[in-house]
Amino acid sequence: MKTASPPVCLAIAGHDPSGGAGIGADIEAIGAAGCHATSLITALTVQNSRNVYAVQPLPQDGLRAQLRCLLADLPPAAVKIGLVPNPAIARWLAEDLVPLNVPIVLDPVLVATGGGRLAEEDMASVLMETLLPLCAVATPNHHELRELYRAAVPDPLPEASLATMASALRARGCRGVLITGGDDGPGPWTEDLCFTHAPWPLVYRQRRLKGPFHGSGCTLSANLAAYLALGHALPEALALAEEATHAALLAAVKPAQAAQAMPRRIRR
Amino acid sequence: MKTASPPVCLAIAGHDPSGGAGIGADIEAIGAAGCHATSLITALTVQNSRNVYAVQPLPQDGLRAQLRCLLADLPPAAVKIGLVPNPAIARWLAEDLVPLNVPIVLDPVLVATGGGRLAEEDMASVLMETLLPLCAVATPNHHELRELYRAAVPDPLPEASLATMASALRARGCRGVLITGGDDGPGPWTEDLCFTHAPWPLVYRQRRLKGPFHGSGCTLSANLAAYLALGHALPEALALAEEATHAALLAAVKPAQAAQAMPRRIRR
Repeated sequence: MKTASPPVCLAIAGHDPSGGAGIGADIEAIGAAGCHATSLITALTVQNSRNVYAVQPLPQDGLRAQLRCLLADLPPAAVKIGLVPNPAIARWLAEDLVPLNVPIVLDPVLVATGGGRLAEEDMASVLMETLLPLCAVATPNHHELRELYRAAVPDPLPEASLATMASALRARGCRGVLITGGDDGPGPWTEDLCFTHAPWPLVYRQRRLKGPFHGSGCTLSANLAAYLALGHALPEALALAEEATHAALLAAVKPAQAAQAMPRRIRR
Repeated sequence: MKTASPPVCLAIAGHDPSGGAGIGADIEAIGAAGCHATSLITALTVQNSRNVYAVQPLPQDGLRAQLRCLLADLPPAAVKIGLVPNPAIARWLAEDLVPLNVPIVLDPVLVATGGGRLAEEDMASVLMETLLPLCAVATPNHHELRELYRAAVPDPLPEASLATMASALRARGCRGVLITGGDDGPGPWTEDLCFTHAPWPLVYRQRRLKGPFHGSGCTLSANLAAYLALGHALPEALALAEEATHAALLAAVKPAQAAQAMPRRIRR
């Protein structure tokens, strides 16, 4: 047995039976980055590589008991939060995570790539009140950013820039806002922008790959949490997470008759 | 994107938040072996590296919908079944898995290493009626083998040999019985014995490692299913699974204050 003990990275997310996204994607990404993954499942989903057909939030008493039991001997060095299906879970998660005082990455999952709604309608404003203020980084895509922005300010501008929307989120307490652009636009490059306190965003540019991919967002946010758990500062953790995610997408496969490719998270 | 499409291996098991065992262990082992892992979670557990404190079977209607949705575009080439918490789930699983006609590995999880009961009391006899007959291989440890044997025959012998007990299970339909011996005895070697139609068992001998380990059984059975999914014949799949599991135990780590070491499943 090796004596070196890897940091623990806790993933809190929904379960995707197809294995492309959700808690399975998180566990694989965290392990591939070199951390030990612990996990809490917030919801079951009926989904495959085509779409999400049903979401079943799990009873919160059981979840909270699981979290407390876990923290007793496996305290995490960072946390990744994905799907939080309803307000009740968001509220006690915020309560229980505050005392940990470790970096939290929030992937504000609201709608699936295939169009199916994953979280309840009012979750954007609930996340804004509860978990967003605790975050080191939130990782919305363009759609999620707009929804969060509308929930963050009383008079949202219809044509607000990415910088304006990111500022509105940062004003609510999260230190960084990584806007993922993989799903947006047809050009040959994708750009993820991370807005922090600095005067301009950190830019992560990758060649666009032929998609669609099922689970790229989960893979990115889990990698980011893992690299923060390993002690990297935010810009370096972001660069490492972007690199690992791009590698997973490059190695992606379409098992059987799958409609979307599944990222393959491989220790490099 | 790579064009080669890895075989799908479906894991059906409970969730262990600590990440050593359960569905997380299965997903990691299946991915490391080179398959695409899909998964179905039969039960949530409150557990950490010390023991299991509660088991919460998940509502079966949702589970069955998940399975059917999954099979529609990601049919598996092999299936691993771990914790089946109650008779109802065992019965419809058997119904839905028969038409697949792929190798099934059944890890008949009944009691946790720490002593906590995972499956309902009568599950040994229910497994015997429902899932055991469908199996390519069952992978009981010594304790589980005795419990299954007592459920298999009307007049169990108190001092039945491993061969006798394995025969009783094989008489109910499963083709191979791999008896795992890692938890048994203090000697410097561990021996796993696989009884098949052959006159003597296949023997897999490894140097005993300093344990206890949390999730070695899950890792072995998931590896075995993955190597069967990749098309290996049983003796070779067993040898590969034993080798991969031993490597995962050699690389095991104790994160934070964990009481038991967690196998580390690394693509070799």
